[in-house]
Amino acid sequence: MTNKDFTHFDAGGNAIMVDVSAKEVTTRTAVAKGEITISGETLQAIRGGTAKKGDVLGVARIAGIMAAKRTADIIPLCHPLTFDKVSIDFTIIEDEPRIEALCSVKLSGKTGAEMEALTGVTAALLTIYDMCKALDRAMLIGNIRLWEKTGGKSGHFKRAVL
Amino acid sequence: MTNKDFTHFDAGGNAIMVDVSAKEVTTRTAVAKGEITISGETLQAIRGGTAKKGDVLGVARIAGIMAAKRTADIIPLCHPLTFDKVSIDFTIIEDEPRIEALCSVKLSGKTGAEMEALTGVTAALLTIYDMCKALDRAMLIGNIRLWEKTGGKSGHFKRAVL
Amino acid sequence: MTNKDFTHFDAGGNAIMVDVSAKEVTTRTAVAKGEITISGETLQAIRGGTAKKGDVLGVARIAGIMAAKRTADIIPLCHPLTFDKVSIDFTIIEDEPRIEALCSVKLSGKTGAEMEALTGVTAALLTIYDMCKALDRAMLIGNIRLWEKTGGKSGHFKRAVL
Amino acid sequence: MTNKDFTHFDAGGNAIMVDVSAKEVTTRTAVAKGEITISGETLQAIRGGTAKKGDVLGVARIAGIMAAKRTADIIPLCHPLTFDKVSIDFTIIEDEPRIEALCSVKLSGKTGAEMEALTGVTAALLTIYDMCKALDRAMLIGNIRLWEKTGGKSGHFKRAVL
Amino acid sequence: MTNKDFTHFDAGGNAIMVDVSAKEVTTRTAVAKGEITISGETLQAIRGGTAKKGDVLGVARIAGIMAAKRTADIIPLCHPLTFDKVSIDFTIIEDEPRIEALCSVKLSGKTGAEMEALTGVTAALLTIYDMCKALDRAMLIGNIRLWEKTGGKSGHFKRAVL
Amino acid sequence: MTNKDFTHFDAGGNAIMVDVSAKEVTTRTAVAKGEITISGETLQAIRGGTAKKGDVLGVARIAGIMAAKRTADIIPLCHPLTFDKVSIDFTIIEDEPRIEALCSVKLSGKTGAEMEALTGVTAALLTIYDMCKALDRAMLIGNIRLWEKTGGKSGHFKRAVL
Repeated sequence: MTNKDFTHFDAGGNAIMVDVSAKEVTTRTAVAKGEITISGETLQAIRGGTAKKGDVLGVARIAGIMAAKRTADIIPLCHPLTFDKVSIDFTIIEDEPRIEALCSVKLSGKTGAEMEALTGVTAALLTIYDMCKALDRAMLIGNIRLWEKTGGKSGHFKRAVL
Repeated sequence: MTNKDFTHFDAGGNAIMVDVSAKEVTTRTAVAKGEITISGETLQAIRGGTAKKGDVLGVARIAGIMAAKRTADIIPLCHPLTFDKVSIDFTIIEDEPRIEALCSVKLSGKTGAEMEALTGVTAALLTIYDMCKALDRAMLIGNIRLWEKTGGKSGHFKRAVL
Repeated sequence: MTNKDFTHFDAGGNAIMVDVSAKEVTTRTAVAKGEITISGETLQAIRGGTAKKGDVLGVARIAGIMAAKRTADIIPLCHPLTFDKVSIDFTIIEDEPRIEALCSVKLSGKTGAEMEALTGVTAALLTIYDMCKALDRAMLIGNIRLWEKTGGKSGHFKRAVL
Repeated sequence: MTNKDFTHFDAGGNAIMVDVSAKEVTTRTAVAKGEITISGETLQAIRGGTAKKGDVLGVARIAGIMAAKRTADIIPLCHPLTFDKVSIDFTIIEDEPRIEALCSVKLSGKTGAEMEALTGVTAALLTIYDMCKALDRAMLIGNIRLWEKTGGKSGHFKRAVL
Repeated sequence: MTNKDFTHFDAGGNAIMVDVSAKEVTTRTAVAKGEITISGETLQAIRGGTAKKGDVLGVARIAGIMAAKRTADIIPLCHPLTFDKVSIDFTIIEDEPRIEALCSVKLSGKTGAEMEALTGVTAALLTIYDMCKALDRAMLIGNIRLWEKTGGKSGHFKRAVL
Repeated sequence: MTNKDFTHFDAGGNAIMVDVSAKEVTTRTAVAKGEITISGETLQAIRGGTAKKGDVLGVARIAGIMAAKRTADIIPLCHPLTFDKVSIDFTIIEDEPRIEALCSVKLSGKTGAEMEALTGVTAALLTIYDMCKALDRAMLIGNIRLWEKTGGKSGHFKRAVL
């Protein structure tokens, strides 16, 4: 390890919140994705999510947005930030069946957006699990990953392997 | 859907926190598991996690325990609960390479433990991601699932497919 | 003032969280109501709240439930509690026009439910305001009151004047 | 609805935190007002609020300031912000009798101040209710409204109807 | 170290929230004390703390009560609990000069009260510091200690050395 | 008191969050220190803090960093801020014996850093207490003080008396 050291530890190995004071404030965006694998029966129940039947994805969307805002409370070494935008989108993949969640975060800061997007997507998926667990306990949450990122010194990142 | 309805919606389809007032207080346990797939190089950096080099898993463990305690703040329809115990354990799987996280929750209540264990395991994995993201941006968090559950009306659950 | 003293102050006038250690744990319920007066145009926009148009009341319901759970964080002298149930219901009154919100809380404890129901109903109404404020800045939130209460030493309360 | 759409939903009707990345940082102020109607007897008890008798309004003021700071935690789609100033003022109206609360917020940001002032005023009124509820259960919280607002694209707003 | 092991680590040295599931629910009380040393000039300013001059100790009392309630959010391995009572008292010692704070906590649980009392007393003292720091930057917070404790397996503890 | 008034009260003596809107955004740093006096036996147990025996100081460091980030939630009149850096360092003083904690905060803002450093150092010390309290109940937390401060109108402060 030469130029690939952990940034979250000081020279003595102590955990620190990284010093970003010398960094410039830039516009940063990050998109994270993840998914929950469910039974076909559960998927049908969710798809019926109108005002009548109960809107699982609507509740999960709010959970994801609120969790993204609180990332610095949940992830110990994340910087508290202000936000320009958070959104959560879902795609239903019928064949497998599973629901894909995407969280998109935009902010102006010296750091950030990546963990916020990952935290948002994860909280949204956990909320889907919570609301469906009376129907289905074999659900699996996975494939949580950074999808794209812009801004900051490290520049544009786009996931190669999907 | 006859006896397989969503419990988190009322007859009108409105999201509710499930009424557990008629349930008995029982001892409940839940174990959830999940994993993060990382590069071999990142795994070696984490394995060197002594006081000297920085203890990634130690920080992630605290994050998981603290997040499990705050599940009702993160998952909209979860009941606020008191806890008897929360622990997080990690297993390093060298060959693949990946780190498996396990969260074990015990409590006395009318509901709970399952979402708390899942939230704990997820926050621990997100924290590993956060601390290693300067080394490796291709990390993948997945396989988050309920592993075992005891107590309550639904009784003992043990995951069939690992 | 003889038997009608403040309970939230000690003999020296210092604010305290009331000592409930000698009280019995009983099942307690409370219902609180409140309303937001809006323009007819805004009401029509909200009524169109399907998955297509955006579900204002669905978001407000989640906000109300989550805030009720966090009452002890918001109201300084409230006791932290566990909950059996929280729900939020809305009634649209077309003629005036306004939306009435009702929050119903059930819990087993030595105190509580009343402030939790009031906090839930208020957060739901503030969220409706937030989501409609680009349309209408003359909205008015009011008529926030305890509607009914059971359990505890003071017994059954039912609001006389509506 | 042409230029009067909800800003908190995307084209598909999904709730979003509004994208403010293109907005300029400006100084923003907002004043919100509200009131609690109480019995004359309760008002007298509150008026005696010196160090000796217990300072209801002093506690309510702190509750309002702290809640205003946490608006983004309570209102799902509000942006987390930094603040320049928050204050809460009370006016006692003897004749009716009622207490009027006013929350004034100042901040530098791309959005905000309005919901923060409304949340602050509401938490202050709920806290008065909490501290007086052993004396008086017929209290009514109402007339919560935006009073004045400056800064941002929408410019100066001053409530026409009081 | 034979029967004097850390309880907050498992056999492998991993931090855990102690398993209290086998413990009985008992009534527990704890009293913690601490103090802030200030200049005589600052003490005079605080003593003038009426409605007219600003009530430093009134604000600090609310801060201490609210922080005690949130102990499990601040101290990583503390159990979330319900509370029966929290109070904060101050004694002004003119000669030295300093202000002593005392936090008293009562609850029914399998664990707790001690850290809650210590957290409450500390937050109260930090708040006094915050409110006086424009007057005096040489203030010193100290002598924070458990004063008395009852309930639970370890029984009655009363501090020997004051 | 002429130019030495409390800044946290308005002219009427009401607690306020100080108006910093006219202040410039500057880089601010603060260092706070404090210590916990423990028995020699407890110190030896802590010193054995490797992955095997349990890392008391590692857990306390995370607690301190997370609490510093949440200062505005704990101290009623503190401004919510973004942060550039937070770190916690410990020094073991064998002779006495005691552990000294130091919290260093850096941020860009119109105010802040001082209370954040004090809150961080205090939470770290409380966490050491929590983890050692099964071994030692005579521990004493003290000597909590601002050590150094730069930035802002008041300029450089360096503690004279250690």
